[in-house]
Amino acid sequence: MPSVDVLVEGIIKGDSSTLGRAITLVESNRKDHLEKANAIVQKCLSQKRDAIRIGITGVPGVGKSTFIEALGAQLNAQGNRVAVLAVDPTSTQSKGSILGDKTRMDELVKNPKAFIRPSPSGETLGGVARKTRETIILCEAAGYNIVLIETVGVGQSETAVHGMVDFFLLLKLSGAGDELQGIKRGIVEMADALVVNKADGDNIKKAAAAAGAFKRALHLYPPKENGWIPKVLTCSATENSGIDAIWEMIQGYIEQNKKSGYFLEKRKRQNRNWLYESIEERLKSEFFQNGNIAPEIEKFVTEVMAETISPFQAAAELIGMFKNKS
Amino acid sequence: MPSVDVLVEGIIKGDSSTLGRAITLVESNRKDHLEKANAIVQKCLSQKRDAIRIGITGVPGVGKSTFIEALGAQLNAQGNRVAVLAVDPTSTQSKGSILGDKTRMDELVKNPKAFIRPSPSGETLGGVARKTRETIILCEAAGYNIVLIETVGVGQSETAVHGMVDFFLLLKLSGAGDELQGIKRGIVEMADALVVNKADGDNIKKAAAAAGAFKRALHLYPPKENGWIPKVLTCSATENSGIDAIWEMIQGYIEQNKKSGYFLEKRKRQNRNWLYESIEERLKSEFFQNGNIAPEIEKFVTEVMAETISPFQAAAELIGMFKNKS
Repeated sequence: MPSVDVLVEGIIKGDSSTLGRAITLVESNRKDHLEKANAIVQKCLSQKRDAIRIGITGVPGVGKSTFIEALGAQLNAQGNRVAVLAVDPTSTQSKGSILGDKTRMDELVKNPKAFIRPSPSGETLGGVARKTRETIILCEAAGYNIVLIETVGVGQSETAVHGMVDFFLLLKLSGAGDELQGIKRGIVEMADALVVNKADGDNIKKAAAAAGAFKRALHLYPPKENGWIPKVLTCSATENSGIDAIWEMIQGYIEQNKKSGYFLEKRKRQNRNWLYESIEERLKSEFFQNGNIAPEIEKFVTEVMAETISPFQAAAELIGMFKNKS
Repeated sequence: MPSVDVLVEGIIKGDSSTLGRAITLVESNRKDHLEKANAIVQKCLSQKRDAIRIGITGVPGVGKSTFIEALGAQLNAQGNRVAVLAVDPTSTQSKGSILGDKTRMDELVKNPKAFIRPSPSGETLGGVARKTRETIILCEAAGYNIVLIETVGVGQSETAVHGMVDFFLLLKLSGAGDELQGIKRGIVEMADALVVNKADGDNIKKAAAAAGAFKRALHLYPPKENGWIPKVLTCSATENSGIDAIWEMIQGYIEQNKKSGYFLEKRKRQNRNWLYESIEERLKSEFFQNGNIAPEIEKFVTEVMAETISPFQAAAELIGMFKNKS
């Protein structure tokens, strides 16, 4: 493995294989890899990076990969360099890792202006989220000016992705009148736009009707703190229609928010939250992985299970040891 | 405030006003109160306590208070001493604190064999859950042999309550055929019994039909790890009908699980989980409340927001300081 400086140099040159190797370090759980990864992230942070980060979510089958393929191709054609990442903490369990099957984006994969990276596997959501955040920094330092982050529309991964992007897009299908049913309220509240996909052929009318229903339903939600009213659009990713209007809308949003200062303010807040998450994660990992503490935890677990000591008292004693012994 | 020993003595004697004062200590966030509370909990743990802990949930309006009033009266009449606690982290926001309006249980409140305590207010779910767990220990040491813990059927408080009880009961109303709709799958999975309340007057047939629908729906859920098949019953808390059958079912469950060893095994696992939660909570509170660390966190927040340091690096440096300085 090359040195930190060599890797950083390669990243900044935009060499995608070096970027891939650096991300592998970020994704590793080996302690020496971790140190190297931290040094790389730290150096990449100081690079000029002005990418736009877009989160894309939706239930399985909604056409996320096809949508990203279509949007990515258009962005590439306009001269942008696009990185596609994924957050999917369930990938090892379900074997249905998003972006794992790269052939689903076969055009984008072949495009030298695009970089595609599947979700790191075998990790908790917290772990995946941290690694994805650091990967974003690396991709941006490598000159990718648009980062698309895909996540599945189930569970809590949307909240994690929402916390690392500038724009959050929810893909939907036209349903049978139940429209906003089946999506958790929280996910709709996070969305800056709802896009009804598969608006093609016989489905065009149904998609338009669904979009209308979404628009009405969104009126029941409180306005965003930046005053933005979530937009509802339709598209067909397979027929490549409506994609340009979506990108225009996103650009409009970004411009408006950069002007108002909200863009930077949100980024800063995301960074601060990320610090607090990092602190909590590291506190726990240092405590539970401490060689002096682990056998003590075992002893206290036995005592707590037998109710000879209260869990609260046991925690106090263990943390006292942690601060003295480590 | 009397000494720890005096308070513990009063608790063991079953003096409810001393119990109330001790719970106030448990609920306090003052550091000196915390130490006293820990000492009391620790001493109460060593008392013989063989209470049964029952969690009761259901959406607002389902009749939880009336149900608890009816069940509590019956249990009291059979010679049991009943403590009623609540877990409701939303109580300060909504002002709709469960058990807060004690007049809703006016019979039980007057009964000297019952002890009623509303949810501690102004706290996170984690804080409320910890305080409720410690309050259970105190109530049991005071001789209450049945502890009923009420929670609202929304949000994550059910999971917290499920993690501290022996039996978890979900109250429902007969609906318009949508039956299990509107309850999160996870809550149904946690329930050891579903009870359709308000099965009285014109509603008896509808309640029976709802119970039938619930029974069929429950077949779609995986069996419990102890082999228990969740029971579905109907009752009318206002007419006091069906309450005896519910109590018989719960007793049957407890007997069966005590025989198989599952009862104790589950208690032990709950205690172990409580230890891990206590550790995480205390690690965070010691870190963030450390007088030497707080100003350093501020500095790093500024740097992280300006992207001159990675959150991960900042967390590493802060935790290094924590271990050296404190």
